[in-house]
Amino acid sequence: MSGFSDWLAARAATRETAGLTRRLFASDTAGPMIDLAGNDYLGLSRDPRVVAGATKASEAYGAGAGASRLVTGTLSIHDQLEAALASFTGFPSALALSTGYHANLAVVAALADADTLIVSDAHVHASMIDACRLSRGAVQVVPHNDAPAVEHALANRTQPRAIVLIETIYSVLGDAAPVAELAAACARHDALLIADEAHALGVAGPGGRGLLHQADLTGQDHVVATLTLSKSLGSQGGAILASPAIRDHLINTARPFIYDTGLAPAAAGAALAALDVIADEPERVRRVLDVATTLADACEVDVPAGAVLAVPMPGPTEAVAAVAEAASQGVRIGCFRPPSTPDGISRLRLTAHAHLTDPELDRARTVLLSLR
Amino acid sequence: MSGFSDWLAARAATRETAGLTRRLFASDTAGPMIDLAGNDYLGLSRDPRVVAGATKASEAYGAGAGASRLVTGTLSIHDQLEAALASFTGFPSALALSTGYHANLAVVAALADADTLIVSDAHVHASMIDACRLSRGAVQVVPHNDAPAVEHALANRTQPRAIVLIETIYSVLGDAAPVAELAAACARHDALLIADEAHALGVAGPGGRGLLHQADLTGQDHVVATLTLSKSLGSQGGAILASPAIRDHLINTARPFIYDTGLAPAAAGAALAALDVIADEPERVRRVLDVATTLADACEVDVPAGAVLAVPMPGPTEAVAAVAEAASQGVRIGCFRPPSTPDGISRLRLTAHAHLTDPELDRARTVLLSLR
Repeated sequence: MSGFSDWLAARAATRETAGLTRRLFASDTAGPMIDLAGNDYLGLSRDPRVVAGATKASEAYGAGAGASRLVTGTLSIHDQLEAALASFTGFPSALALSTGYHANLAVVAALADADTLIVSDAHVHASMIDACRLSRGAVQVVPHNDAPAVEHALANRTQPRAIVLIETIYSVLGDAAPVAELAAACARHDALLIADEAHALGVAGPGGRGLLHQADLTGQDHVVATLTLSKSLGSQGGAILASPAIRDHLINTARPFIYDTGLAPAAAGAALAALDVIADEPERVRRVLDVATTLADACEVDVPAGAVLAVPMPGPTEAVAAVAEAASQGVRIGCFRPPSTPDGISRLRLTAHAHLTDPELDRARTVLLSLR
Repeated sequence: MSGFSDWLAARAATRETAGLTRRLFASDTAGPMIDLAGNDYLGLSRDPRVVAGATKASEAYGAGAGASRLVTGTLSIHDQLEAALASFTGFPSALALSTGYHANLAVVAALADADTLIVSDAHVHASMIDACRLSRGAVQVVPHNDAPAVEHALANRTQPRAIVLIETIYSVLGDAAPVAELAAACARHDALLIADEAHALGVAGPGGRGLLHQADLTGQDHVVATLTLSKSLGSQGGAILASPAIRDHLINTARPFIYDTGLAPAAAGAALAALDVIADEPERVRRVLDVATTLADACEVDVPAGAVLAVPMPGPTEAVAAVAEAASQGVRIGCFRPPSTPDGISRLRLTAHAHLTDPELDRARTVLLSLR
């Protein structure tokens, strides 16, 4: 093992020297903190109705699905979840997977063959980048949110089919994609738009139904969404929303779907309950955007499209220091350092939460102002 | 969308003509059946102690982890789960992921760079094949369970590092790998053995601790295991078991770990409870092997290494017909058809379950004999 041991030690030393070593810590052991770091935007992970959705599902269906979806791992609660996700967002059908990462891997790898051009925004999530590597398609990365560049790539392609990969709200910078413009370009050039709504679901669009719903794109055959159940829905899992023809194709060909155990009943039950809460209490969605506006003001950055704020920092050391300083004052914020940023710039990453009380929000604002 | 619509329709027609169309059905709506298809080998998914593990964890920690593990998504229950998995199997450390698929993607992509040869058994799981595509390593596929071929590939490599990918019990044929021989070859040639124990955990080795434990390999730096929490542990999730140096490397570099929400508390809690049950009740492990022996006798195939039996069939149509006939007699079996088989041969796939009663096992045997 000497070769591997030496290599591992050298890599570790390089990280340490660059100030880029990451370590895990159990967040529940740090004492009470104001959370401006996690992705549980609506506070539903600990909502009693959502927890009850999880526990009732475990009791009714068991702790696990027990098999892949095509063997015996499809349960009624998966059918219910898929129907509810389709109904909430306005898509004709949905397919649930065990993570959002799986959803992106599955949809891209199954739809992009060697005769497909994949046009990918420069800022898409790691799961979409990995999805491109898994697929057989040729990949062309275009500048961030550059619709003319997307159109140019589609118009000049040599492949019969094309797919455009975007996030509707980007995970690192928190900005929105020009979804209507991109969907129109896809329609003009017979291409498919695959849009990750991970950071939009529950936060953006009418009642938290996402930016594709807002742009009236969810019933169109050339528009596909991916979702996570692990952010605003407070659970775990992912989903693909698309036409029934695409759903059938995925069931038959998407390896990360076919060869994975079905989503745990508890995760499906929690997500179902969360969808009900969001539909019943649209004020949560408004609140998260109000909180985001307050935080953006305190940090002197633009009001974000959803709950994610990015604050540029001089370097990774300063970013880490700011995170530590905020933590010492009882506020948890995150930072993105290379290689987690699309442009090499270290940033503070703050997330707005609907369940912050007004005193908590005031306190957070004070701490953020002290970091400037 | 006409290009994509036409392509989807053509692919669907090809599947239909070949008898290879797959459809989902909710297994809980089919009425009571004797289950010889799922992977809940020990019946723990519905064990009240395991369900209680899931519900207590949801109540204590919430329905979801709320963030990626490096942000705020690491919870004490992840630490507990990782310690318990390491302790049970005998590895020095563990890292939990949200699926077994993620575990394989993460470990291979993070450890195999452009200076690494990946020697992969021809029968490894889809997740390991996808992991090879994600990594930057050169991939050499060797014949199934052919230790001399592995040794030859390692000895003649031009890369400084090498990784060997195997399953300890293979998911399709159910046979065991020659783990001691392969680990020795890896040690001789300064290579890392990555062995997926998905179908061995809870089923094979002393008290269900796996085949690496049985071969006294779990404390060795050049041996890494991947696991799933979704088969014998009745939950959802995956894990990588390895040296602390490898674990640190994965935390810092494994994209399917870094960019994925942490495992849901319910899944971690269920897996923890299942490990306790297996440790307390080793007779479950013995029972599953006894059941497997009875089923193998009824099907006239060799006694398997674990709970998975594969029965070759003339073609996909005959395999589907046998599955339907068994179902009509109240016994659920599965089948693997291309492209889910490593050699193009369609097979019935049966799995042994510790929780089958003697009358159920007798009935299953009678039905299987009627299919011959």
